[in-house]
Amino acid sequence: MEKTAVDLNCDLGESFGVYGLGRDEEILALISSANVACGFHGGDPHVMRKTVVLAKKHGVKVGAHPGLPDIIGFGRRQMDISPVELRDIFTYQISALRGFVEAAGMKLQHVIQHGALTRMAEDNEALANAILESIREVDPNLIYLAFEGSSIPKMGRNMGLKVAMVAFADRAYDRNKRLVSRKVPGAVIHDLALVEQRIEQLVTTGEISTIEGESLPLEFDSIMLHGDTPGALEIARTVSRTLNRQGVKVKPMSELV
Amino acid sequence: MEKTAVDLNCDLGESFGVYGLGRDEEILALISSANVACGFHGGDPHVMRKTVVLAKKHGVKVGAHPGLPDIIGFGRRQMDISPVELRDIFTYQISALRGFVEAAGMKLQHVIQHGALTRMAEDNEALANAILESIREVDPNLIYLAFEGSSIPKMGRNMGLKVAMVAFADRAYDRNKRLVSRKVPGAVIHDLALVEQRIEQLVTTGEISTIEGESLPLEFDSIMLHGDTPGALEIARTVSRTLNRQGVKVKPMSELV
Amino acid sequence: MEKTAVDLNCDLGESFGVYGLGRDEEILALISSANVACGFHGGDPHVMRKTVVLAKKHGVKVGAHPGLPDIIGFGRRQMDISPVELRDIFTYQISALRGFVEAAGMKLQHVIQHGALTRMAEDNEALANAILESIREVDPNLIYLAFEGSSIPKMGRNMGLKVAMVAFADRAYDRNKRLVSRKVPGAVIHDLALVEQRIEQLVTTGEISTIEGESLPLEFDSIMLHGDTPGALEIARTVSRTLNRQGVKVKPMSELV
Amino acid sequence: MEKTAVDLNCDLGESFGVYGLGRDEEILALISSANVACGFHGGDPHVMRKTVVLAKKHGVKVGAHPGLPDIIGFGRRQMDISPVELRDIFTYQISALRGFVEAAGMKLQHVIQHGALTRMAEDNEALANAILESIREVDPNLIYLAFEGSSIPKMGRNMGLKVAMVAFADRAYDRNKRLVSRKVPGAVIHDLALVEQRIEQLVTTGEISTIEGESLPLEFDSIMLHGDTPGALEIARTVSRTLNRQGVKVKPMSELV
Repeated sequence: MEKTAVDLNCDLGESFGVYGLGRDEEILALISSANVACGFHGGDPHVMRKTVVLAKKHGVKVGAHPGLPDIIGFGRRQMDISPVELRDIFTYQISALRGFVEAAGMKLQHVIQHGALTRMAEDNEALANAILESIREVDPNLIYLAFEGSSIPKMGRNMGLKVAMVAFADRAYDRNKRLVSRKVPGAVIHDLALVEQRIEQLVTTGEISTIEGESLPLEFDSIMLHGDTPGALEIARTVSRTLNRQGVKVKPMSELV
Repeated sequence: MEKTAVDLNCDLGESFGVYGLGRDEEILALISSANVACGFHGGDPHVMRKTVVLAKKHGVKVGAHPGLPDIIGFGRRQMDISPVELRDIFTYQISALRGFVEAAGMKLQHVIQHGALTRMAEDNEALANAILESIREVDPNLIYLAFEGSSIPKMGRNMGLKVAMVAFADRAYDRNKRLVSRKVPGAVIHDLALVEQRIEQLVTTGEISTIEGESLPLEFDSIMLHGDTPGALEIARTVSRTLNRQGVKVKPMSELV
Repeated sequence: MEKTAVDLNCDLGESFGVYGLGRDEEILALISSANVACGFHGGDPHVMRKTVVLAKKHGVKVGAHPGLPDIIGFGRRQMDISPVELRDIFTYQISALRGFVEAAGMKLQHVIQHGALTRMAEDNEALANAILESIREVDPNLIYLAFEGSSIPKMGRNMGLKVAMVAFADRAYDRNKRLVSRKVPGAVIHDLALVEQRIEQLVTTGEISTIEGESLPLEFDSIMLHGDTPGALEIARTVSRTLNRQGVKVKPMSELV
Repeated sequence: MEKTAVDLNCDLGESFGVYGLGRDEEILALISSANVACGFHGGDPHVMRKTVVLAKKHGVKVGAHPGLPDIIGFGRRQMDISPVELRDIFTYQISALRGFVEAAGMKLQHVIQHGALTRMAEDNEALANAILESIREVDPNLIYLAFEGSSIPKMGRNMGLKVAMVAFADRAYDRNKRLVSRKVPGAVIHDLALVEQRIEQLVTTGEISTIEGESLPLEFDSIMLHGDTPGALEIARTVSRTLNRQGVKVKPMSELV
């Protein structure tokens, strides 16, 4: 099934105090939805405000990107946090960001967990449930931005949440539709021509070629970009150009799901 | 002018991780408004949730009590923070607490700054303005809980905010209606009979006796209690009993201003 | 084999800023070795100084008690920290505490990891190795205070470190000489008569009765006390009295290993 | 009086977790002494280790650069910290860094406070004293790296500490030999030719031209470089080349004072 419109999302607002991270301005020119860090793994209140205001200027919708309370580890180290603690740090972070979004005259669009939390939630249903419950209690109209390869999207829909699905242009998938670990050669795709080809395949056939060589249908509403290195930015631009050439419109996920 | 009703408020939710602080349950039985810490000088997301739920159970209204980002110093050490930074950490903290309050089916009632921020805002109009602007941008219907002795209450009213005024039963005032520094003998009142007498004077005449010996009119809607020591809790109970004996009702500030 | 002397150790210095924890003064009257928190899971520089000075006053030797960088979780939540990171946070914490110990005219006696790190090191040899390497690089004469039930004590001795072994008076052991999980009924012993009996068995026969009912030899140089609750303090006093009645001297581990 | 040798120092090791800061490798090729952040305003245990090892590889001596406990503000925001707290956080940070330095087979050379602490210590003798006492208690052979324009160097010498004096090549001085505030035009010197001229003046005459136009004698053993921007790195290289052309050797301060 051919796509006529797709969302482009990217993690933003990860700078912290004097410490800069990412090419937020350049990425904002390309995307329709920003996942904004909420101060626990990256970001701080001042950076959050600036990022939200900048997103608005570029007509980009804002989502919350809450993480583990571990700024030194950038939220990438798994922690043995209980479901109750997880739910509470999510409600805290999502609500804090929502304050800046509403102060800028916008509405918070979506939520997506950061870093090690994705694997933790995929491996532990109680943690997945805590994330979804927090989203629902903050605002049942928030979209949960989810990955293929686990039961979490279904759990979210069963709870009554809107769920948007993410595809990656620059990461290899296995036959279970999970991302191949970065430690495996070929897991991260740097070749711009290959990125272009995968995007074309995705938007024209709805399928992705796995690392094992099969083509599998991949449900997606949004493509995740990265902007933290010059190479990542080049890939982001390639995705954007390819979509444009294919006549696929870039729209925020709230207009798609 | 005789008072028929007054609010009783107290700082709550200051525990942090395994570290307990305060007698929240015992205080909640006495007060009508709780100033809940927001995780920067005390409190954490889990403590915030528990405190809000407990307040609801006791029919107590919840306000935000944001502080400086200094958990080791408990927000009591002045910091050279810019007005922009202050506004942003306030919007962050107030919004985070509001998330828990609304998840509990309540409405955030008020905001009062914590610790060293009071003196900092009294001494620096730009900081006072940052606090008030943050409150207004989060929700213009929030009440700002204020102290006599500075121009901040007037600034708040000029901005269109509702302002409730605080009186202390156990702290001495000077002739400028500012609290006498804790370093001065007599600044903190431990004598229960004297506390009783000051409450009676306040609610029947609207006046307070200063440390210099004068009686001055003191504008107040709410009396601030403390519950972090056995002695403080005894004073809180004395205030409560005295109001009851005088026929003064205890009501949340949102019903008074 | 009958013991004529044993060390008594306890975790101390876990207060943080305004947050008090533990009955350090009362415990210092009983013990010969203090495990002092180093600011990552509990403690702060000021608390560390005070604790070291107080230990000296009581003639108690000081060891470092480094933990995970997680003050909200009190170092009790496992974190997916790499061996290199663990080694570095240990060298940092041990060295920081050593500064206060030497400033007080003492010598740092030992090191024991805190909280979730024990299980993490038992389950992951690379983490155990990181802990031991850090101790050796800071000072090869430091004693490593270890638990039965894993290969870590042997690893330490193979590295050339002095190792002292810990026994618990108030925790049940299983037949692998590991502590029974606190979730199992009977894992924590509150009965003072039973504590007394276990201490007598330990010092006269060198054996401990397991939760399965067997008596097993338990290597130990030091008995670990707790002082964070009134009940724990009562147990600590019972241990102390029992040793005294049995004619067993209490000596710092540096005089025993 | 003509100089035949001078130290070159620079702040290093200010990265934090995933957040990079500064061009440490390029600067290490130029300097003889590194001021290494200790984890409170910047740096973390892993960064500290890496920086120390890298300094050793380049034959650069290491000093401690302790700061305020304020990573978001990078230690640049004044805080109302007591002398006792300041002394304790200094002993903590200096000792922690010393652990890494000694583990690398080196000796800690010097200490210099970071950021807002310089002005705080210049304005408050008790704070200056706390810094000097901490240095002395950690190791009375440590060099205190000091600025002209206050009584702190003299206080240090009166305490028995070795003191080395710093000059800036790229900052304007006033007639009190204090640095001109960055807010004043001309306070920061970007012109490479002017930097070259000031270095020549310093090493041949021992004098500096003030912003008011006078030439004043400036006591100095070390010139402070910066490496956090491309422009700063260019200035650092200019200073290095100028010294070389003038036949002035670059030696660590421990060989000079």
